[in-house]
Amino acid sequence: MATLGFIEYADAPPEVKAVYDDIMTSRQTDYINNFWKALAHDPATLRRTWESVKQIMAPGALDPLTKEMVYLAVSTSNQCGYCIASHTAAARKAGMSDAQFAELMAIVGMANETNRLVTGYQVEIDARYRT
Amino acid sequence: MATLGFIEYADAPPEVKAVYDDIMTSRQTDYINNFWKALAHDPATLRRTWESVKQIMAPGALDPLTKEMVYLAVSTSNQCGYCIASHTAAARKAGMSDAQFAELMAIVGMANETNRLVTGYQVEIDARYRT
Amino acid sequence: MATLGFIEYADAPPEVKAVYDDIMTSRQTDYINNFWKALAHDPATLRRTWESVKQIMAPGALDPLTKEMVYLAVSTSNQCGYCIASHTAAARKAGMSDAQFAELMAIVGMANETNRLVTGYQVEIDARYRT
Amino acid sequence: MATLGFIEYADAPPEVKAVYDDIMTSRQTDYINNFWKALAHDPATLRRTWESVKQIMAPGALDPLTKEMVYLAVSTSNQCGYCIASHTAAARKAGMSDAQFAELMAIVGMANETNRLVTGYQVEIDARYRT
Amino acid sequence: MATLGFIEYADAPPEVKAVYDDIMTSRQTDYINNFWKALAHDPATLRRTWESVKQIMAPGALDPLTKEMVYLAVSTSNQCGYCIASHTAAARKAGMSDAQFAELMAIVGMANETNRLVTGYQVEIDARYRT
Amino acid sequence: MATLGFIEYADAPPEVKAVYDDIMTSRQTDYINNFWKALAHDPATLRRTWESVKQIMAPGALDPLTKEMVYLAVSTSNQCGYCIASHTAAARKAGMSDAQFAELMAIVGMANETNRLVTGYQVEIDARYRT
Repeated sequence: MATLGFIEYADAPPEVKAVYDDIMTSRQTDYINNFWKALAHDPATLRRTWESVKQIMAPGALDPLTKEMVYLAVSTSNQCGYCIASHTAAARKAGMSDAQFAELMAIVGMANETNRLVTGYQVEIDARYRT
Repeated sequence: MATLGFIEYADAPPEVKAVYDDIMTSRQTDYINNFWKALAHDPATLRRTWESVKQIMAPGALDPLTKEMVYLAVSTSNQCGYCIASHTAAARKAGMSDAQFAELMAIVGMANETNRLVTGYQVEIDARYRT
Repeated sequence: MATLGFIEYADAPPEVKAVYDDIMTSRQTDYINNFWKALAHDPATLRRTWESVKQIMAPGALDPLTKEMVYLAVSTSNQCGYCIASHTAAARKAGMSDAQFAELMAIVGMANETNRLVTGYQVEIDARYRT
Repeated sequence: MATLGFIEYADAPPEVKAVYDDIMTSRQTDYINNFWKALAHDPATLRRTWESVKQIMAPGALDPLTKEMVYLAVSTSNQCGYCIASHTAAARKAGMSDAQFAELMAIVGMANETNRLVTGYQVEIDARYRT
Repeated sequence: MATLGFIEYADAPPEVKAVYDDIMTSRQTDYINNFWKALAHDPATLRRTWESVKQIMAPGALDPLTKEMVYLAVSTSNQCGYCIASHTAAARKAGMSDAQFAELMAIVGMANETNRLVTGYQVEIDARYRT
Repeated sequence: MATLGFIEYADAPPEVKAVYDDIMTSRQTDYINNFWKALAHDPATLRRTWESVKQIMAPGALDPLTKEMVYLAVSTSNQCGYCIASHTAAARKAGMSDAQFAELMAIVGMANETNRLVTGYQVEIDARYRT
């Protein structure tokens, strides 16, 4: 199941329950996914990770759908099976259509291709792109 | 400079010039960046790569700014120096603000963190996320 | 099972048996794990890999537990499922506690995050850190 | 220098100065490295990242030297030039000897090798290692 | 099965059937593998990807077996389970022997090891290797 | 230059000189490249790495040119600047033409693209490809 197993809500110590409650409230759901139940063995990391994700994914200069799609794009590029599965679900919940998913994947694939072409050909950065 | 050097417009054979012309027309610029000038030693790959990029980055279900930001996010995750430099420029040209850039980077960083946490804890995919 | 299948002790040619024997003696176990049984189809690679691992993981300037945890950290960062499973077991055998595992994972996650932030922001190396 | 440039102490707004002060106090130094000065354009990410790093790298079940070496190992595996330079310095400050550095690198190299061998041979996880 | 499911030949629209037909003709098989059936939800990406693969993998300065082995080497280095499985099959069909497979894997492993050693030791590129 | 600096032949202890001599004899050159001079601070790793590379890159079921090209392909996929520079030189010395280089890069790029497409679409391995 997971290296240290999962901690269910009923068995959780108060500091874990507090995070679970905040996740459920923030996401308007009664479901805690496996990632958080695995991390709960380390309450400090559970809280820090959740607070970070909540802060980063809140609406800001980028809208929630764009944020979820970027998260999915990076997880796809990293080939993280769990993250692809869970963030595909999250992106769809945020409104991602099948057409948007397909275009997103096409960009992830293309970027991975050109990243290697440019490095393999040892292309020097153009003067105008240097910081 | 680059493994095979750069091919400048004036020295390019017709099939390379045709791609350079299309790049300049499509992007409304008179500048060909180093990547294309390095790839030009392989005209078939130059054409295929440009046609693919043009098709993928055209407006569709995702708008051009979102597409450029996803490209930059993946290039950042892959730590490709050239691609980060050139796609930061491209994303800015498409309208990316400093605040959008900062939020984008925060998501790329966070996704890379949680991708490893979930894999390291060997978290099983939730039944509801399975395809 | 594996691309070329597994070679069990009873079916192994002498040069493979010799490596298996050394693994079991060195690790004080009677168990040969799947990795070695898969590699055994290439006796030269089996021997070279085992000799390298034995040399590298022997106590030295770093103690065995630290070494196992570093191996697990790298395998986690690379998202290698088999390696995470087997090196979690090895690290625990070397004495890794649940608290140490959790701190290790937190560092792996954080390093992956800041690696991308620093590259994405195109941060120049400080003069004092240059070699 | 960096995508958004660096923010020096003298030019920093109060919320950035507060983080800079905490970094200098915690690390007993009067030097702020480029990473933080680049991130300072996004004060929320500056604070979140610093607070996370401070929490994760504090002495706990793992000692500070081990933590710095794990950070360096992961950064090396990810091939992040800036992070390798800065965390080599940090690990040395925490007491890493040349011999420990060399053993650390050997493990990082070996783990990257066996990670690919095991995946390339499509080796199934041993029943005893499954969670 | 796959995020958007598979599209079977009988259910495919004409532009997808045309690609499927070309795959079967080019590869002299009546089997369409899952990758193409998953991509078929995005006919433009299906066609572009197939045309690119067909062009790149055609005999040229490198023979088909070498090409398939390079594809497998990269997929192994990237730890892509599906790609390793399918390109191992393709390389075998192109004539890869068990001995060639084993040597290929040894190189992939070694390159991954030395890539990290050289980066971790921050080795400067020799003047004679600079472009 | 490098984290621990370089050890030149004249300053090398006997066990390092012995490896340098073997490198020069095996490669029929009087040049020791920076990688070995950096590793020489750890004579055990210098010897082990050199012996492994020598064994793996020797002619076998795959010819030397193919081996060098696979090494370059993996180094390109991993985006290791030093390794790309040095193995491009080595592959050319082994006979790689510009046309072979260009086809190699095209495959590396394409494999990186399809690796992500297949993972992002969560494509299940075909029954016929399973081991």
